[in-house]
Amino acid sequence: MDSKSYLALHGNGIHHVNINGTLYPTKMKSRRQRWEVKPSEMANNTLNPIRAIVDGMKLTPNPDKPMIALSIGDPTVFGNLPADDAVLQAMKDAIDSQKYNGYAPSVGYLKSRQAVANFYSCPEAPIEAEDVILTSGCSQAIDLAISVLCNPGDNILVPCPGFSLYKTLAVSMGIEVKLYNLLPEKSWEVDLQHMESLIDERTSCLIVTNPSNPCGSVFSKEHLQEILKVASRHCVPILADEIYSDMVSCSSPSVASLSSDVPILSCGGLAKRWLVPGWRMGWILIHDRNDIFGSQIRQGLVKLSQRILGACSIVQGALESILNNTPQSFYSETISFLKSNSEICFSELSTVPGLNPVMPSGAMYIMVGIDTDHFPDFKNDVDFTERLVTEQSVFCLPASAFEYANFFRIVVTVPEEMMLEACARIREFCQRYYRPRSCDSNDLDQ
Amino acid sequence: MDSKSYLALHGNGIHHVNINGTLYPTKMKSRRQRWEVKPSEMANNTLNPIRAIVDGMKLTPNPDKPMIALSIGDPTVFGNLPADDAVLQAMKDAIDSQKYNGYAPSVGYLKSRQAVANFYSCPEAPIEAEDVILTSGCSQAIDLAISVLCNPGDNILVPCPGFSLYKTLAVSMGIEVKLYNLLPEKSWEVDLQHMESLIDERTSCLIVTNPSNPCGSVFSKEHLQEILKVASRHCVPILADEIYSDMVSCSSPSVASLSSDVPILSCGGLAKRWLVPGWRMGWILIHDRNDIFGSQIRQGLVKLSQRILGACSIVQGALESILNNTPQSFYSETISFLKSNSEICFSELSTVPGLNPVMPSGAMYIMVGIDTDHFPDFKNDVDFTERLVTEQSVFCLPASAFEYANFFRIVVTVPEEMMLEACARIREFCQRYYRPRSCDSNDLDQ
Ligand SMILES: Cc1ncc(COP(=O)(O)O)c(C=O)c1O
Ligand SMILES: Cc1ncc(COP(=O)(O)O)c(C=O)c1O
Repeated sequence: MDSKSYLALHGNGIHHVNINGTLYPTKMKSRRQRWEVKPSEMANNTLNPIRAIVDGMKLTPNPDKPMIALSIGDPTVFGNLPADDAVLQAMKDAIDSQKYNGYAPSVGYLKSRQAVANFYSCPEAPIEAEDVILTSGCSQAIDLAISVLCNPGDNILVPCPGFSLYKTLAVSMGIEVKLYNLLPEKSWEVDLQHMESLIDERTSCLIVTNPSNPCGSVFSKEHLQEILKVASRHCVPILADEIYSDMVSCSSPSVASLSSDVPILSCGGLAKRWLVPGWRMGWILIHDRNDIFGSQIRQGLVKLSQRILGACSIVQGALESILNNTPQSFYSETISFLKSNSEICFSELSTVPGLNPVMPSGAMYIMVGIDTDHFPDFKNDVDFTERLVTEQSVFCLPASAFEYANFFRIVVTVPEEMMLEACARIREFCQRYYRPRSCDSNDLDQ
Repeated sequence: MDSKSYLALHGNGIHHVNINGTLYPTKMKSRRQRWEVKPSEMANNTLNPIRAIVDGMKLTPNPDKPMIALSIGDPTVFGNLPADDAVLQAMKDAIDSQKYNGYAPSVGYLKSRQAVANFYSCPEAPIEAEDVILTSGCSQAIDLAISVLCNPGDNILVPCPGFSLYKTLAVSMGIEVKLYNLLPEKSWEVDLQHMESLIDERTSCLIVTNPSNPCGSVFSKEHLQEILKVASRHCVPILADEIYSDMVSCSSPSVASLSSDVPILSCGGLAKRWLVPGWRMGWILIHDRNDIFGSQIRQGLVKLSQRILGACSIVQGALESILNNTPQSFYSETISFLKSNSEICFSELSTVPGLNPVMPSGAMYIMVGIDTDHFPDFKNDVDFTERLVTEQSVFCLPASAFEYANFFRIVVTVPEEMMLEACARIREFCQRYYRPRSCDSNDLDQ
């Protein structure tokens, strides 16, 4: 067949007619005349509050003091927390086998999903391989969970202070974010009444981050039950971000293990507990004993997982062995290191006038309140932490990056000496700028 | 502070007032009364045509013949095409170094982006590290490229027959897909007039897949120039899916190396040429010498990359060494294997009455036309390939899965003996069902 064509006048416009008779209107009018390529609304609406704040800060350390970054939620940056040998060996075995070079199913290898199910299943919240979806990091788990539950115009409830990704993802998808307060004076428990007051008929999911980034807090069984009651009363499913599960120095049940009716998508992964965030291995555990999600939500998750496929097949191939062969001592040593560093940091900063650290019990963070009345030199937490870099070369993330004011977050994964040095510098900095409260000085005047 | 609260009647509703005076309206009316959790529109609109078709087929092989699947675009499934030792070693080195456990930047390690830039830069289309974005497979590269260029209501031009992911992604984002025809009689070149006729002012990108899945075709320099002319005339940027680049038995320039003005996002990855699709290592190369994308599209891509982060850090860490140390012989042996298998398949099926294979020059596929007039027993390509499974235990993907009729696709990565056996069975099948055309039989009657 030949595709020669000729121009024919047809009706009110020029058409191309090719040899097999098809007509292609050329729509001359609508043709674009010049280049104009703009990023989509979605790209424009993908906002990263941490970047927005940090990029706007002047972060020039004091040249006389080596920089100490207490800002990065990556436990690997200082080299003091290597991955376990069993984990590395599992990876190398997966590579050598040449069995994991090909495409895995979009929800992950069955064997690997089974391994995750075995690892997390418990009598109160039993799960099986089919309840596990493997993802590219916990981030993709959160992305899929929000994507399957929410439509544009819906809203989700997000903790404040909280991990910024929820908002980044939701806003880019046209989903409204409602922030519910955590209460520092109650070890960052949820302000349940505030949370409940935000729920309306367009609330399609309640995000619970436990243990918390940025707070390092861990909810008690009783508090989780209170949260579940609210969700149950309003029939709102829970997205439980449990990426820091078991990184705790206290008992801490999973949300799902306490739920009798509320369906839960629990998001987790290897990133934190196994100290390999770059490997991008995450998962969703579907807890749905009352069949409220049913097959529709499951199928929705499967369909969404087919868009870009999930985690690297080598890490998937190693997963069973990683979960089964990492020695208990690895987990417990990580926890006791984080606990010890948290205690150092808490006790050091507790005695600094004007600072109010909140003792954490999990994850790898501690939040420190700034008594702004006592620091009239600084406009806010961003100003405070910026000057801390300029003068003391210590960088802590201002809580504004988590939509919260007058706090900063310290990452406790740094080596102990560094933590001590950082605390000493923070003390020096605060002592320099601390001003007694006006009423206190009145007291003195009397 | 205490969070005790009391109920107060306020205005026309009940409010919670907590101790610090904040009012939380409880909106009793809007409370959901029963569980009803439905998947989002996006989940519902994420459609995978391959799954839709294959899941609807009755695929019960003939128990007397071992199954031969010529359907899966995964070169690793038969074990005859292992990854190169240098590639495996690079991975193990990356693991042992413990340097790549942490988070990489969302667009990838600079060193790895640099390695990709060095590998693909050429005088006609120079690129640098900053022009490279690493992604989780070529699929995420395509996802980011479409996401940054298109808004809901826009349309994109997609080859037909073509890889189904473009449509899956676009439709789920509310982007319209317009299919432009490829011409089997011209070795699957683009029907340029048809393509041009589809362009309107809402056309935000033209997807060019070269080499092609499912066709195995490779465009000549001249043909690519014709395509570029159309894009240039209408000021439409190109998304070049070049995941099969260099897997060719002929010369095949990249689209970007021929473009003088059209900005191009070229998507690629390790999946096919390095035979490791499961590793999920992909990239976008930004070609924009006339600064039409400008910093806005680049920043849009960076922002979108921060949503779920990209490729596994171990593979990223190994990337420089993979690109630099894979021996030429590995590439050339893969190509000559694929070429030889394609030739076997082509020459075997060319002599089967009623079949019209189109000789490929790249990728790992061959498309075979079914002369349906001669096979009155079968309704269509789906019916034909389904019966081929039932009777001969050979599974080829019907081209309906690529929005095209009366063809089927054969994957040529299977071992040679299997390819020969499959062709013999296809011949037997066709001989059984072939009917001379009615006019042919008239000829005989005369
Ligand atoms: C609360 C929380 N959820 C999710 C993530 C993302 O985890 P991943 O790196 O596995 O995507 C993080 C990372 O810092 C986090 O702090
Ligand atoms: C044309 C084409 N583009 C993209 C892809 C996806 O590549 P990846 O596996 O790297 O996501 C494929 C996979 O088959 C393909 O055929």
